[in-house]
Amino acid sequence: MKGVKMYREQIKVLDCTIRDGGLINNHYFEDNFVREVYKAVSDAGVDYMEIGYRSSTSLLSRDKFGKWKFCVEDDIKRAIDGIPSKTKLSVMADVGRFEKDDIPPKNQSVVDMVRVAAYVKDIDKAIDLVNDAAEKGYETTVNVMSVSKVIETELDEALCQLEEESKTKVVYIVDSFGSLYSENIHHLVNKFKRILKTKEVGIHAHNNQQLAYANTIESIIKGANYLDATIYGLGRGAGNCPLELLMGFLKNPKFNLKPILEIIAKEFIPLREKMEWGYIIPYAITGMFNEHPRSAIALRESPQKDEYVSFYEKMLATEMD
Amino acid sequence: MKGVKMYREQIKVLDCTIRDGGLINNHYFEDNFVREVYKAVSDAGVDYMEIGYRSSTSLLSRDKFGKWKFCVEDDIKRAIDGIPSKTKLSVMADVGRFEKDDIPPKNQSVVDMVRVAAYVKDIDKAIDLVNDAAEKGYETTVNVMSVSKVIETELDEALCQLEEESKTKVVYIVDSFGSLYSENIHHLVNKFKRILKTKEVGIHAHNNQQLAYANTIESIIKGANYLDATIYGLGRGAGNCPLELLMGFLKNPKFNLKPILEIIAKEFIPLREKMEWGYIIPYAITGMFNEHPRSAIALRESPQKDEYVSFYEKMLATEMD
Repeated sequence: MKGVKMYREQIKVLDCTIRDGGLINNHYFEDNFVREVYKAVSDAGVDYMEIGYRSSTSLLSRDKFGKWKFCVEDDIKRAIDGIPSKTKLSVMADVGRFEKDDIPPKNQSVVDMVRVAAYVKDIDKAIDLVNDAAEKGYETTVNVMSVSKVIETELDEALCQLEEESKTKVVYIVDSFGSLYSENIHHLVNKFKRILKTKEVGIHAHNNQQLAYANTIESIIKGANYLDATIYGLGRGAGNCPLELLMGFLKNPKFNLKPILEIIAKEFIPLREKMEWGYIIPYAITGMFNEHPRSAIALRESPQKDEYVSFYEKMLATEMD
Repeated sequence: MKGVKMYREQIKVLDCTIRDGGLINNHYFEDNFVREVYKAVSDAGVDYMEIGYRSSTSLLSRDKFGKWKFCVEDDIKRAIDGIPSKTKLSVMADVGRFEKDDIPPKNQSVVDMVRVAAYVKDIDKAIDLVNDAAEKGYETTVNVMSVSKVIETELDEALCQLEEESKTKVVYIVDSFGSLYSENIHHLVNKFKRILKTKEVGIHAHNNQQLAYANTIESIIKGANYLDATIYGLGRGAGNCPLELLMGFLKNPKFNLKPILEIIAKEFIPLREKMEWGYIIPYAITGMFNEHPRSAIALRESPQKDEYVSFYEKMLATEMD
């Protein structure tokens, strides 16, 4: 029996290695590393690469973050200069951390897509911002964060607004805490598709419970066409859906796995010795409890990093508060 | 939204850390480690612990394997001596590597369950051996290995035979290569349940593509009640479904996660520095290709251990032969 793999032309893969990975190192990736990633995903035929956040220097200090928190046009240009590519470039923009002026008209930018990340409570702001980006000529998405914590009726209302009032092409389900199971994914993708009749649905999964890839597959099965992944799963905390696994599942002949395997061996195996991400017990625990990984990140930076039982007890006590 | 977790009284969890982990180190676990695992799974309320293989010393040399390849009664007794436990003990017995005489009558053994592992082609032998063990008073299972490579009609026939001719209580789906996707799992559990009307269905998953836990959940959803897992996923190659994640999913109040978290910190984090298992690219590749991990194991023991592209090309060439 061969695997039931998937080929659907509308499927788009977005690599967000540098963007989500930047949450581990405050976006201080060196230019050469970003170039290598861009080269690998371009050679692999990945549809989009998200190179970082577009943030406002008036809202965030340039001293506190690396350049990929801001993605100034010249920095992007330097990183991609001379590399042949059909991969489109994306930046993420967090509601509250950027202003419309940070997004120039498309013809003054190397960026192809702007992804507005927002909590449900900020959906009005997100719609205003994403419409501005769409009107400036960008492809756009709205990424609905922390869907696992949202009250169902508020989510429904936000999705109705997105359908009716926004110009975004895609709306993403973001499993920020890596807490969703397949049944939740089925429910959410069905809901998103039902309400967002004129939009595509995307999935951004976290790997706290080793379910990021599985949940991405379940999303595909239910009709999601925009899929986030990162090389070797690099990303904050437990990381993301590994791009190499996802490419093994997708049968589209435009994809080539080899450049991704090559860069894993060359860059990501050594990087893993210096930066921590992946299946680590405290992240599994926050996933089980459907909580933000921040307490696990703090634990891993402390001398108590492997004191799992007391961490678990603290989470239990908080839940019962 | 909280996870759709599962409580079903019939569900039994079997820890096979020592048995499957023994495939990495030729079954040379020290007594103290085995005792610690037994203590942890007992305190955690795990239903069964598989302590190793029961093999025949006339078929396998005692010089080439550690004691947990044979599970002599006195060795087991020494390992569990004085530890309070309600956890039942299991041994695995491979068709062709043990004889009926290796299984004494139940009243002369501390073992509760004998699991006969067999390929579909050996199903007649498996039925003969499992019936002998059942008649001697043991709980029994038949574990159908490499189901992902079996011709469907031959699998159907083997399952019909197991239903009609065997006294086994449980029949396991064994995803030996970690190549199955959720749709395969749904198909297989449905088939096993349809044919094996008087038996329970079990699942033993491998984690090559980070799907072991996800596939175990999918099996539960479709009605499998016997679930294999290992602490921190320890097991040959990519390892198994992590027990700690599975316990986080199962809502049965008899389970206690803390002893498992404790032993991971104390024993498994240090062990991982000395023994290799888990998400490693060559195992992901053999999983994608639905192949035995032996070529990946050989690669990892060679100086070329991180040469993923040439390994992938070799797998591609073999597939196209």
